[in-house]
Parts: sequence; C-alpha cells; structure tokens
Amino acid sequence: MATELPDAEYRSRLREIRGKLANTDADAAVWFAATSIHYVSGFEHVQTERPVCLAVTDERIEIVVPRLEVERVEEVDRIDAVHHYFDYPQGRPIETVAEMLDGLGADKVAADSDGAPGVMGYEGPALSEFVDVETQSWVSRMRWEKTDAEIDLIRESAKWGNLAHRYLAEYTEPGAHPATVSQRASMEASRAMLDTLGDQFVENVRGDGPAHAGYISAHETALPHGHTPNQWLERGDVLITGAGANVDGYRSELERTMFVGEVSSEQEHYFDLMLEAQDIAIDALGPGVPLSYVDEQVWEFYEEQGITDLAQHHVGHNIGLGGHEPPYIDQGWGGYDQVDDTDTEMQPGQVYTIEPGIYTDGEGYRHSDTIAITEDGIEWLTYYPRDLDSNVITE
Amino acid sequence: MATELPDAEYRSRLREIRGKLANTDADAAVWFAATSIHYVSGFEHVQTERPVCLAVTDERIEIVVPRLEVERVEEVDRIDAVHHYFDYPQGRPIETVAEMLDGLGADKVAADSDGAPGVMGYEGPALSEFVDVETQSWVSRMRWEKTDAEIDLIRESAKWGNLAHRYLAEYTEPGAHPATVSQRASMEASRAMLDTLGDQFVENVRGDGPAHAGYISAHETALPHGHTPNQWLERGDVLITGAGANVDGYRSELERTMFVGEVSSEQEHYFDLMLEAQDIAIDALGPGVPLSYVDEQVWEFYEEQGITDLAQHHVGHNIGLGGHEPPYIDQGWGGYDQVDDTDTEMQPGQVYTIEPGIYTDGEGYRHSDTIAITEDGIEWLTYYPRDLDSNVITE
Repeated sequence: MATELPDAEYRSRLREIRGKLANTDADAAVWFAATSIHYVSGFEHVQTERPVCLAVTDERIEIVVPRLEVERVEEVDRIDAVHHYFDYPQGRPIETVAEMLDGLGADKVAADSDGAPGVMGYEGPALSEFVDVETQSWVSRMRWEKTDAEIDLIRESAKWGNLAHRYLAEYTEPGAHPATVSQRASMEASRAMLDTLGDQFVENVRGDGPAHAGYISAHETALPHGHTPNQWLERGDVLITGAGANVDGYRSELERTMFVGEVSSEQEHYFDLMLEAQDIAIDALGPGVPLSYVDEQVWEFYEEQGITDLAQHHVGHNIGLGGHEPPYIDQGWGGYDQVDDTDTEMQPGQVYTIEPGIYTDGEGYRHSDTIAITEDGIEWLTYYPRDLDSNVITE
Repeated sequence: MATELPDAEYRSRLREIRGKLANTDADAAVWFAATSIHYVSGFEHVQTERPVCLAVTDERIEIVVPRLEVERVEEVDRIDAVHHYFDYPQGRPIETVAEMLDGLGADKVAADSDGAPGVMGYEGPALSEFVDVETQSWVSRMRWEKTDAEIDLIRESAKWGNLAHRYLAEYTEPGAHPATVSQRASMEASRAMLDTLGDQFVENVRGDGPAHAGYISAHETALPHGHTPNQWLERGDVLITGAGANVDGYRSELERTMFVGEVSSEQEHYFDLMLEAQDIAIDALGPGVPLSYVDEQVWEFYEEQGITDLAQHHVGHNIGLGGHEPPYIDQGWGGYDQVDDTDTEMQPGQVYTIEPGIYTDGEGYRHSDTIAITEDGIEWLTYYPRDLDSNVITE
C-alpha cells in the first residue's frame, strides 16, 4: 500500500535539479510556487498572500516562510534552514528572501518567477531588485513523467476514488438530491480510506475528507464545466460523475456517464458514440505516439459520424500533483520551449486522463479514465466498469 | 433573503470602470483573472489552462472563452458578444483576443496582466505582441469596499455557515472522527440551504454542497494552517473550527475554539486571553481607524501579558468573492499604489475577519468573526456565541 512518497524520490529530484543548476551560471535555484516547493522539498502549504520561497544550492536547501508555517516546515528534515518573517506585509518577505540568498552566497539565481505571485492581493518587489534573476521552469517539465513511486500513489488514489464512486452509485435513486448523494459518498469513502490507512495516511486536508465523488445532473451535463443543479433526481436523468482521492498530494480522475432508472434510445446512441470515441483514444495511446495524433483520431471519428458540432474540447490532460497538468492531448500540442520529439510524443511515466465528450443541446456524455504510459504500452489506473449496463442505476 | 447580486450592481461597476477608462488613453479595459471577470460581468468560471478574456469599451462588453464555456457565457445577457477558440493550445487563445480587440477598434488596452496567467501549465504570447498594453488593477481596488447588496450576500452566507457550525457542535462527541463530523455537518447544512433557497439558489459548486463546516483538532490546532488529523476525538481535545457558505460567489468566515467534553484550567486561561485579544480588536474597529492601529492594539495586549511568542500572525483580512482579500489588518499595512488615507484607514463597506490567535507548543486558540465597517460603527455578520460555556461540548 503506497501512501507516502519515499524519501529517495526527493533525493533523486534534488540530484536532477542540481544537475540543471550546474549547467547555468546561477548560484541557487529558487521557487515561489507552492506546488513546485512541494515537489522539490516535500513541504506542502496553501499558497496565500504570504509568500514562501525555497532555495536550493549545490549544498543546501533553505526556505523562507511566514511565522505561521515555521513549525510545519521544521518537520521536513531535508530542509537545512528555515528563515521566517512575521506576516505580510509587515514582514517584508522578499527582503527576507534576499537575506537568505546572501547567506547562501547566491548573487545570481534561477527562479520560477521574478518575485512572489500576486495571490490574494499580494504586492511586493521583484527579486531582481536584490539579485540577478534568470527564470527557469525546471519543475514544471520534470513533473511530466512520473516515477513508479509517483504512479503507485496515483494508483492508490484511483482505488479510493473507485470506492467513492461505488458509494455514489449506491446512494443514487429517483428523488435523491445530487448534492447530498455527492457529499454522502465523499464522507463514507473518506472515512473508509482514513480507517484503512490509519497512521500511513499523510494528512493533507482541512475540515474535509481526502476522497471525493460527486456529479452534475440533467441539463447541467450539457456544460462540460456545469454545476450541480438544485433539483432532485428523476428517472431518465443523465449524470456525469467525478471521483478521486488525495494521496500525499497525488490525484486521479474517474468520471462516468450514468443514467437514473432508465435510458432512452437517444441517450444510448450518444453513450455508445462517447464510449467508442474513448476506445479510439485509448487504443491510440502508447510510448512514442504524438499527442496530437490521439486527438486527431478522435476528431476523425467525429467527422465520420458527422458529430463534430457536438464536441467542445480535446481528449485529455495529465494528472499528478495538479488536477490538470501538461502535456495536453490536443491537435495543436507543440511541446514546450524548444520542441523536440520527447516533448510532443507520449513518454513512459506520463499519466493521462482520457475523456472525449459529446454534448447535445440538453445533455452531455463523458467518461474519464486515468491511464499511465508504460515502456511498452499502457496501464489503466482507474477500473470502474465503463459499459452501459453497469452505469444505469436500477432500483 | 438576498441570494443573487442584483443587475444594478453590475451596471454600477461598469459605470465606474468606464469612468476609469475615460481617464486613460486606452480604448478598452481587459481582464484575464477569473474573479475579476466574475466581478465585472457576472460570468463565473474556474480558471484553468484555457484562457478567458473580458473586454469593456465605452459601448461594448465582449469576451473570449474556450468552446466549452460558450453556452454558459451566452446566458449572461450583459455580455454583448461571445468569441471562442476551440481548446488550448490548438485554438490560439491570445490571437482570438487580439481579433476581438481589433473588432472593437482597440489599439491600446488597460489590462490586468499582459497576457493570460500561467495556470495549469498554460504558456502563450504576451498581449503586448498584438496591442499596446498598460496594466491596471482597478477591480482589485474596487473590491475593497462592498455595497449594501454585497454585504447582504455575505450576511446570508454567514447565516448558513452558522447552521453548519451548529450541526458541527451537535455531531461532536468523544470517539467521533473529525473528518466525518466535518463532512456530515457540511452535507446537512448544504441540504438545508438548498431546500430553503430553492430556485433562488445560484448554482456554483460541482459535486459538492454550498455550505461547509469543519475543524482541525488536538495537536494540529497548534498550527494555524494545520490539517485534520486521522485520529478520533477524545475528551479534553481542543478544536479550531471553520464554517461558511457560498452565496452567489460571496463568502463569510466563522471560526471557534471549542473543547470536547471538558476544559482544563490551562486551556481556559489561553481561551480567555484569545477572547480578550479578539474583544480588543473588535473594540478598535470603525470607519477612519488605521488598519495598523487595530493590529498594534492586539500586539500591545500580547506585550502586557508577555505572550508575544505565542502569536503567529496578524489580526485579520477582508473577505468577499475571495477567501482572503486586501486590505489586511497588519502593523505594516501601507495601502496600495499611491498611499492615501482611504487606503490605510478602514472604510464603510469593508468586511473584515477578526481572528487574533494564540498558539502554545501543543494547542491553538482562535475565534474568527466576519464584521462589516459601517458609516458610524460596525455590524457583526457572524453571530455564533463566543463565550467559553457555549463552546464546550458536553454530552
């Protein structure tokens, strides 16, 4: 049962970063983005108006945090020194960062941004007012390919997402409220996960549970980013579900198109088209396959069927510490910075959601599965049944 | 019962923005940030790797969205024209924005940023490659002072947050799991809110409910941004709660320090200190009061009591469409851009959370109340009892 990223992963990430740093004339690598700081150091925090800054040199890892994060970050042994300011704006966060860099002997840094991002109204000086700054996006690119240990966590996430989704199906019936069914399934799956993992669970949510399942229903399914309507479920309603769980920060995505009580022949028609589009995309996946090719295969199917007007988005995205991550399965995918083949073709360790959708005037149809690219093929990480019969809720 | 921001509010916001625009030599004002687009147009969306851009001229309001938002944005009557690209990256979002601006005759724009933010791996050209760009942060500043209609929504939010908090207290007992109590309270309060508001509820969540309550417990309370621990509640545990609800995008914040079953004399001592600090801050609030003065009053109390080492953050923040918004009640608060009195002193319509906290080695103590500044004083928007007896859970 993989529930926490092993320490060796962080050592490996640091080696890679220090290798990149050695190829620059910068003295330190610096990050202000919370997810990158989590990825490099294992210290997870919520990005607010209070800047946090991590610095890595060839010998040291140091960090600047607001006072309220000091005890949490001190628990992370791989960080060699913790500097803090009291709060924003009184604490002068960037000046504290400059002092840390001075102590590290860093006159020139490779930073993810030239100062802290303007989150929640934060305003402050550029880092380049204090040191020479070149920008880098090393972590963003490193996150594309997951290691086996990262995929283990996504697989564990998919397991609890599957349970939450099973509860969602169990609690669904005509007359039920979609918000209540969603919240009850999330509550019960979270508790099963917490009780099963026990001390191995890495605490990471606040006033909530780690597993979630929910849906949008009826007319809202026609909108890919629709909301849960305030209306009770009725026989014949279509549902688009979503389920997953947070395992040491890693996520998975499971979505199903379901039907309450009965399915009309029109609904079955669109469901079948959606399922065939998903099959086509999944059949096309593999190491070395251009991402654009996968999206084009689905688009060609839509053209054959004369339903391009029912498509509203591309095939899918990567998932990991972020819910949406590049690379994107999109006909226009052109890679990253300097484009080479490894940036435009699927690589082992990338983890994709495969979710072509079909949207009529009144309803939507979309499954989403989380699938890893392996050395010689693919591995399904989600495993909830995809066929129509398994997705019609009958009393 | 105020559940939706009236159309007149958007007309008023647009008038103000057009007034600001007239004072520049720009032809259009432009926003890429989701919350600002919501504030100006009423169109709410989740910010992803797919850019959205709103443009306002002295005559027109137009928007660029990805294909998957077209139907949702077309429901917003005050937007005169909807342009779309298919998806990212194939759709070339910024080029579509440039075409929209060309159609509006806008060669120079006042934008909230020079291109779309790098959310979820988005990369794209600067807007200044196509038109002259000067940056503005008009909406950020406009959001500081709420109108009566906005405060009505925050008041409504506080009502449902209060109910969720009441359920939280009701379900709390030794042996209960803090995640399950939190999720159950959120589920029941959301359902009461949905059933009460009915058609007046503005749908805005996905696979979840609009009201939330939850807590962190025991040792995690010592960390202002702690997590919910995976351990059952025990007699003598301290809880720090949080509750609120989403009412047409507006939020409130209610937090209480509670005790499971019994309270020790040491806990009572720190609770009393915390409550007195909150009283001091609230007594200091009012129109024309410097924000730094309020934080200083609390700090002086800590100094008198010899407990400055137990403080980890300033007194509070504003709340509205964002969970944390400026201005911040902080000794170093210096206003905004060109500092003048109205930027450093509390103004009618600002809505503050008041939440000085005290943190020992093992436990934390913090209440948070949401309080509006009025023309001649303050108005409490949260109203859950603050005294010790009301916050000790007895069987």
